[in-house]
Amino acid sequence: MTMLEHIREPRDLKALPGDRLAELAGEIRHFLVQAVARTGGHLGPNLGVVELTIALHRVFDSPADRILWDTGHQSYVHKILTGRQDFSKLRAKGGLSGYPSRAESAHDVIENSHASTVLGWADGLAKANQVRGKDDHVVAVIGDGALTGGMAWEALNNIAAAKDRPLIIVVNDNERSYAPTIGGLANHLATLRTTDGYERFLARGKDLLQRTPVVGQPLYESLHGAKKGFKDAFAPQGMFEDLGLKYVGPIDGHDIAAVESALRRAAGFHGPVLVHCLTEKGRGYPPALEDDADHFHTVGVMDPLTCAPVAPPGAPSWTSVFGDEMVRIGAEREDVVAITAAMLRPVGLGKFAEAYPDRVWDVGIAEQHAAVSAAGLATGGLHPVVAVYATFLNRAFDQVLMDVALHKCGVTFVLDRAGVTGTDGASHNGIWDLSVLGVVPGLRIAAPRDADQLRAQLRESLDVNDAPTVIRFPKESVDDPIPAVDRIGGVDVLHRTPHPDVLLVAVGVMAPVCLRVAELLAARGVDATVIDPRWVKPVDEAIAQLAAQHAMVAVVEDNSRNGGVGWAVGQAMRDADVDVPLRTFGIPEQFLAHAKRGELLADLGLTPAEIAGRISGALARKESTS
Amino acid sequence: MTMLEHIREPRDLKALPGDRLAELAGEIRHFLVQAVARTGGHLGPNLGVVELTIALHRVFDSPADRILWDTGHQSYVHKILTGRQDFSKLRAKGGLSGYPSRAESAHDVIENSHASTVLGWADGLAKANQVRGKDDHVVAVIGDGALTGGMAWEALNNIAAAKDRPLIIVVNDNERSYAPTIGGLANHLATLRTTDGYERFLARGKDLLQRTPVVGQPLYESLHGAKKGFKDAFAPQGMFEDLGLKYVGPIDGHDIAAVESALRRAAGFHGPVLVHCLTEKGRGYPPALEDDADHFHTVGVMDPLTCAPVAPPGAPSWTSVFGDEMVRIGAEREDVVAITAAMLRPVGLGKFAEAYPDRVWDVGIAEQHAAVSAAGLATGGLHPVVAVYATFLNRAFDQVLMDVALHKCGVTFVLDRAGVTGTDGASHNGIWDLSVLGVVPGLRIAAPRDADQLRAQLRESLDVNDAPTVIRFPKESVDDPIPAVDRIGGVDVLHRTPHPDVLLVAVGVMAPVCLRVAELLAARGVDATVIDPRWVKPVDEAIAQLAAQHAMVAVVEDNSRNGGVGWAVGQAMRDADVDVPLRTFGIPEQFLAHAKRGELLADLGLTPAEIAGRISGALARKESTS
Repeated sequence: MTMLEHIREPRDLKALPGDRLAELAGEIRHFLVQAVARTGGHLGPNLGVVELTIALHRVFDSPADRILWDTGHQSYVHKILTGRQDFSKLRAKGGLSGYPSRAESAHDVIENSHASTVLGWADGLAKANQVRGKDDHVVAVIGDGALTGGMAWEALNNIAAAKDRPLIIVVNDNERSYAPTIGGLANHLATLRTTDGYERFLARGKDLLQRTPVVGQPLYESLHGAKKGFKDAFAPQGMFEDLGLKYVGPIDGHDIAAVESALRRAAGFHGPVLVHCLTEKGRGYPPALEDDADHFHTVGVMDPLTCAPVAPPGAPSWTSVFGDEMVRIGAEREDVVAITAAMLRPVGLGKFAEAYPDRVWDVGIAEQHAAVSAAGLATGGLHPVVAVYATFLNRAFDQVLMDVALHKCGVTFVLDRAGVTGTDGASHNGIWDLSVLGVVPGLRIAAPRDADQLRAQLRESLDVNDAPTVIRFPKESVDDPIPAVDRIGGVDVLHRTPHPDVLLVAVGVMAPVCLRVAELLAARGVDATVIDPRWVKPVDEAIAQLAAQHAMVAVVEDNSRNGGVGWAVGQAMRDADVDVPLRTFGIPEQFLAHAKRGELLADLGLTPAEIAGRISGALARKESTS
Repeated sequence: MTMLEHIREPRDLKALPGDRLAELAGEIRHFLVQAVARTGGHLGPNLGVVELTIALHRVFDSPADRILWDTGHQSYVHKILTGRQDFSKLRAKGGLSGYPSRAESAHDVIENSHASTVLGWADGLAKANQVRGKDDHVVAVIGDGALTGGMAWEALNNIAAAKDRPLIIVVNDNERSYAPTIGGLANHLATLRTTDGYERFLARGKDLLQRTPVVGQPLYESLHGAKKGFKDAFAPQGMFEDLGLKYVGPIDGHDIAAVESALRRAAGFHGPVLVHCLTEKGRGYPPALEDDADHFHTVGVMDPLTCAPVAPPGAPSWTSVFGDEMVRIGAEREDVVAITAAMLRPVGLGKFAEAYPDRVWDVGIAEQHAAVSAAGLATGGLHPVVAVYATFLNRAFDQVLMDVALHKCGVTFVLDRAGVTGTDGASHNGIWDLSVLGVVPGLRIAAPRDADQLRAQLRESLDVNDAPTVIRFPKESVDDPIPAVDRIGGVDVLHRTPHPDVLLVAVGVMAPVCLRVAELLAARGVDATVIDPRWVKPVDEAIAQLAAQHAMVAVVEDNSRNGGVGWAVGQAMRDADVDVPLRTFGIPEQFLAHAKRGELLADLGLTPAEIAGRISGALARKESTS
């Protein structure tokens, strides 16, 4: 039996002698590689925080003390140490979430896996402790990458202002978000890291420490306390202390004793304090360390030894279709530039960046800046393409509205991972973009149904220079092309019959679903027309005209029903005085737990069979009452 | 004729000798006080930037060089110096906008008057210059208050990273946003400001400078260039240089020669540089300086000498009803706390803060942090009330969705200035909140119709501890109470007849409008029921049941029609298989130019007469075709 199997809760960890912890860390790394290779998931980030997590749970008393994880994909070790060692269904329906989950454990607080939120949460929890007279600790773990997000700055500014409100910020500095962290802050952190004299001093401190029992206030800490002046001379405290935050570091984040010591020192300081830990993403797993791109940030199911994927690559992804077309466009148009928010390759801009390195910018985990700087780029005469995951553009709604749209800037937003994404859970579904962007005056939205349409609509968007455009597509691989039998206005007709009863409006990838619905309806004697609006905002006038020729209209979309294309089609019909009954099929008003996309769509009734059944039922009820 | 009347464009300003500029500044201040007293508008901020704006237009060549104003209410002086001296219809329909406006002048770039955007715009424009090989200057003016916004941080991080891309940031540091600036950054700026040794050094530099002609590279600048080491010793450059930004300052922002000199020095530096100017809000106008609260940030129409308001105060405002009720609630419930984003008094929390100073936090211009820290406070056992203007909550959509709603936090958002606000122009209308918040799972929205309802619904919201709630109300004064004749489900019936034709659903303050519509319809022989849903999200089940008893349903709201309550009522009807024709009245998909609220509503057809006419017309068409 391994040591790890005896760790059921943090108390078991505290009982271990310090000299056994390195062995435990090794067991955890072995567990992580084996488990994540079986299911896929976030590997590199978790290999980097093994020692840090052990130290946190030895120093603090979770859940009374709140240990908060930013961008929760770094919480696997935390899960392992808090009673969750069954990773067999990680990220699968009914299994462990890939992020913290309050349903799983009292040790989890923040489920939001969007970055840079943890300091705001910590500030609120610390304020609540203060108001309620509680002296429990609040500890926020945040990566250096997440510090590039504006929310982190807003929180730091507030945290630093309250000198008497204890709060511990642990910066997990691995020099990366997904890719290497960019910007002035990253440069400053590098300065802190590489102050030679201080590193030598640190090394001496550690040597001493290793010969000293890790109890109470170790020598290392005393040394630090006594020699503040000395330390300052070698390691400029920099901007954090300028803001008024106590700075402790840099600490070797893989030296458990050193981290524990720093955390105990921070816990004894009755104000806001920042502990700067240096860690290595992918630590201890050579294949991850050798992967320059992202140190195995996420992996699919793979062989843990060879790292070969178990499933062979399938059809091209939507992402790659977009990425390849961008390279072609880049060669044709010098004014086309691209922006990514810390995810150059995941959004498909890797090849564009190789071909045109001076025309692409990684702005950090900073979607607001992506949108606003795009407005500036457009005003400066270029046509920017902002490529982000759909869920993350929610961060920049005000900027899309007030900076891009109000100023009539020709900016193309490309939303990857739109619709139900599935295994990443509630915070990664891109099921609100059509609704939220649907209110933005002048903004146009395309939902391509196949790769040909994606390429065509991307090019159409680049010809719009007086308004923002949005192209949204899902995570999955691209299906076969779906030919149109006709085009009416801007609308593609995918299927028609001589005397149709129902108009099916298929949004993007719901086209094949709707074609199948039409087949099922035909079997019940109900004839359907199937159209793809291509541009779903504004609603094409042809749709209301077509609607008037049918007994019922049904809109099917992979987006929240609230405010989605279905509702917009209803408005277009009313504006044309067309009061044909309408039914809308989309995501109901709820957050979706993690499961596969197909499982979720089935649970939500977004299958051809269920849609066909509900349409024919509604038609039958109408006929019986008319 | 004054000097000012001869200034038609920046070129005229450049032709003036330096020793006449102080006189010109005096004329501009006289103009500002007289003009703004006549119309109302932003006074304090503009009095503070007179010299800074003169210097900017003397050093740079707008519009080729881009002079960008953050939170454009500080652009009046810029307007005066760029050919716009007719302030007679400031902020009125057809008159000058209270913010920069590209329709007014080629010298204006950013119309968005939400704070903290300017650095992002500047980064984009500077990148466009770099790609296109242009060497025009990009100059961004931002207040110290706006630097507390996360967007500013995201931009600084990007700007500082590009050492070879010229960009000039002018920090207009008056120690205030609306109220005094808060947080760690403010403290750091204060440190920079008060470094005694450096201030003495500066004073000597200025004495020398005043005896030196302001041409080319003045002595002051040479001194600075030569003595960088000396300067560093006296004025720690601090966090800006830690990030990699060249720092120049602090400069007396009311000393035109000093500011010009600093700007010329910055213009010659081929990389990102920050010029730190100290200014005084309300400068030169004693009544403004004596106003501790906000230095006459905005004023209504007033007597410029006595500062007495020309119009006597009318009925209580929605804001004051909320504020007074909060004080009462605070006495009853110790768990109720409040958050403001740099607008304590404008959102009505002044009295609450006086009564319960330990239970209110000003987080700076940081709506994201307001929302996320509220999630933390709620998780910590308190019930936070986040009070913001409706337009500004758009900044925190992702945080309301992913931090507050996903975590089922009991947070009350109070949205002042919801609906059409009018004179502040496009960026201040709160006409998207019902749509955007309408997609958030579990979130509940109340739109009170009068003061009694506001008080009652605020209390109802404080009893919801497992979901976010929103209370939205407009800018105007509160009308008389509107009694209900019945309540069905959670819906108030305001008017009914024995055999009604039309169901009018009145959202919040559209209640009196709908009652008048009912009168007008009755005169045409159409009988109407008028209901106030009170809580507009979720849509009460009673509404679809009532709808089934009418020949038509009309929803009237002071919100974007896209995604608004009208569309949600349509969905509720469809879900109940009620296919009664629906018509929705709200704001069409457009940005609204500045004008009075009543003028805008009339232009949009949201008057009782027009609504009644459109409803009766639609009914007639239905009857003729059925």
